[in-house]
Amino acid sequence: MSDLLRPDSALDLAGSAADLLEVLRETPPLTHCITNAVVTGFTANVLLALGAAPAMVDIIDEAGLFAGVASGVLINLGTPTPEQRAAGAEAVAGATASGTPWVLDPVAIGALPVRTALAHELLAHRPTAIRGNASEILALAGLSAGGRGVDATDSTDAAFEAAVLLARRTSGVVAVSGPVDLVTDGDRVLRLANGHELLTRVTGGGCALGAVMAAFLGAATATDHDELTAVAAASLVYTIAAERAAAEAGGPGSFAVALLDALAAVGADDVRAAARIEAGVL
Amino acid sequence: MSDLLRPDSALDLAGSAADLLEVLRETPPLTHCITNAVVTGFTANVLLALGAAPAMVDIIDEAGLFAGVASGVLINLGTPTPEQRAAGAEAVAGATASGTPWVLDPVAIGALPVRTALAHELLAHRPTAIRGNASEILALAGLSAGGRGVDATDSTDAAFEAAVLLARRTSGVVAVSGPVDLVTDGDRVLRLANGHELLTRVTGGGCALGAVMAAFLGAATATDHDELTAVAAASLVYTIAAERAAAEAGGPGSFAVALLDALAAVGADDVRAAARIEAGVL
Amino acid sequence: MSDLLRPDSALDLAGSAADLLEVLRETPPLTHCITNAVVTGFTANVLLALGAAPAMVDIIDEAGLFAGVASGVLINLGTPTPEQRAAGAEAVAGATASGTPWVLDPVAIGALPVRTALAHELLAHRPTAIRGNASEILALAGLSAGGRGVDATDSTDAAFEAAVLLARRTSGVVAVSGPVDLVTDGDRVLRLANGHELLTRVTGGGCALGAVMAAFLGAATATDHDELTAVAAASLVYTIAAERAAAEAGGPGSFAVALLDALAAVGADDVRAAARIEAGVL
Repeated sequence: MSDLLRPDSALDLAGSAADLLEVLRETPPLTHCITNAVVTGFTANVLLALGAAPAMVDIIDEAGLFAGVASGVLINLGTPTPEQRAAGAEAVAGATASGTPWVLDPVAIGALPVRTALAHELLAHRPTAIRGNASEILALAGLSAGGRGVDATDSTDAAFEAAVLLARRTSGVVAVSGPVDLVTDGDRVLRLANGHELLTRVTGGGCALGAVMAAFLGAATATDHDELTAVAAASLVYTIAAERAAAEAGGPGSFAVALLDALAAVGADDVRAAARIEAGVL
Repeated sequence: MSDLLRPDSALDLAGSAADLLEVLRETPPLTHCITNAVVTGFTANVLLALGAAPAMVDIIDEAGLFAGVASGVLINLGTPTPEQRAAGAEAVAGATASGTPWVLDPVAIGALPVRTALAHELLAHRPTAIRGNASEILALAGLSAGGRGVDATDSTDAAFEAAVLLARRTSGVVAVSGPVDLVTDGDRVLRLANGHELLTRVTGGGCALGAVMAAFLGAATATDHDELTAVAAASLVYTIAAERAAAEAGGPGSFAVALLDALAAVGADDVRAAARIEAGVL
Repeated sequence: MSDLLRPDSALDLAGSAADLLEVLRETPPLTHCITNAVVTGFTANVLLALGAAPAMVDIIDEAGLFAGVASGVLINLGTPTPEQRAAGAEAVAGATASGTPWVLDPVAIGALPVRTALAHELLAHRPTAIRGNASEILALAGLSAGGRGVDATDSTDAAFEAAVLLARRTSGVVAVSGPVDLVTDGDRVLRLANGHELLTRVTGGGCALGAVMAAFLGAATATDHDELTAVAAASLVYTIAAERAAAEAGGPGSFAVALLDALAAVGADDVRAAARIEAGVL
């Protein structure tokens, strides 16, 4: 990772991420998640460990209302039942009306028709941020048929063009998860090199990051940090915690447990010291 | 906690809780849970660790029947899909018809309309016990607009009046969870001071306690212990296990794991020795 | 367990299981699970830890399609919502059309009418393998009214006749889980004696094994190992991992974590060394 520079802008970003972590813990953002049945418990635990306030409100006639009072919203398409699809649409309308930032995680789109159609529908409402692996981002941009389920069959850099395209189309932020995370708002691009392979051996390792992004976006609204910074901060804090967890884990089971402990323990100074960022302008 | 007395009645309660724990382990109560998607796995693991027999039967045309053969039933409103709402109504009817004790956990009612209406509907069927945080108990009693989701924005004592009111209205037991748990049957009031803050950093930390109450109520039916005692016993055993878990946890992740180990390990003598109870008469 | 012989056929089976474990890790089988809400996260984590690629695709209009591209499919009836019931039927049709092996886990059938009817419907489509406890296998064969939920109220040997009957009726493999697992294809019978009691103290301890069987069946299609061998291999690897986990666990919570670590760590040589098999011909 010696090609990862720490220019002034990168140092700024690490500092901003550290600041946002403190803001989040001082005023826990109410983070509204409509997410898949596989990872809903783990996602709530990740948010609680970090210091945010999760609420998994995913039924019709509650989701829209709740998105209006939440600090940030996640719509994850992992197991989109009809109830969740309608609740997701409601939540997006509620978030849009109230200006609540929201994150779209288009899990396994491309090959699977129901969620693919839904993802494109939601995309038209301009998510504040989109998080996915390279295959999903390519599929959402219309540049690939998608992967075989939740596998990332494409490398992060393969989705660079798709990510920039999507960011410009939505005026939002796009984050591509992989060994090096790529985050862009269509003008600026960040490559974030923290993290650990064990994150791919725990279900929800990626999905929970989408929720953390919603929490950081919520925390950032009370500050002068922009959305790109908030999304990158979420990635940095999460992946730095993952590195600490991996250092004491004996496998994927103990890693998931240690990740929760690390998310609770990681401090602003740790983020400043450990962040590995490459910043650039398009 | 020096203001927590251990009068004779409190010693009796600690002894009764210890007895009920042994009864529960000898004849594991079949504990029927209709609970939210976020915590269903953790709740089942809590019951299994403790020694009870969980069954998460939450579909129409099975829930009513099953409530009739179960030892205790939990209706938790955390993510009430239409299927679960109908199954919950069925289960309450089945439990009522067969005399099975049942627990209502009105998660996040107040601000959210669907579950609030459902909670009031179920309330009319007189739950054997109600468990919630102060905000939820206040909202159920009609004394507050409720919290912002699952947060307890009111202190336990703030819900004292609401708890007594609800207990008298239902002829049941009401338990308010917080740093000090409050349990009342409308005539007697117990303050239970065991527990640990980490319970609030694990999703299901409160919800699983509702299931444990259903299990203890089921175990108690074969004894001469009353419902107040059963509900208080559940709180005591659960929160004493939480204290043991916290003593060896490095954060919320390892705490949740240690809590399951502690629930399996905690014995009748531990309960007798560690219980911190204040009993009173209204 | 001194009555457990290690004849040549048993040595062969241990070797085949070891081979299949290596095949699985080299080419992770895409394992499509339609499973219950209680264990879906744990099941995905078990598959990921082992080295397989889980995908929990359980909605209408996606499940059938996905079963056609998956390597193996699991249909678990633990919490069968109407959406999951329709998706399960779709998946079975998709799997049958494409020749994808599929596993039926008839959780808690017998006493509960909706899932019992569904299990018999699916049975007519001849699952590649069936996994259940003795009560469930008896109920599926029509030889018992079933247990009280997910309890195994009958011993494994009590289901011997039912298992052979079902295997012959479906031309498939039937696995009965218990202290000694029984696996039969109607001609041959295997008794597998690895495992640990703590598997019954973790929710999903049995359900996840059904998913592991689907993964091994998927891995075996590229080899000349038959279905009986694949199902037995899944049991052996899983229960040997459970033994390693139990050796360092302090209770059911730490056992579940250690099981995931052990599933990732267990190697082909461990399987060869630790397998305890009794093979026979009917």
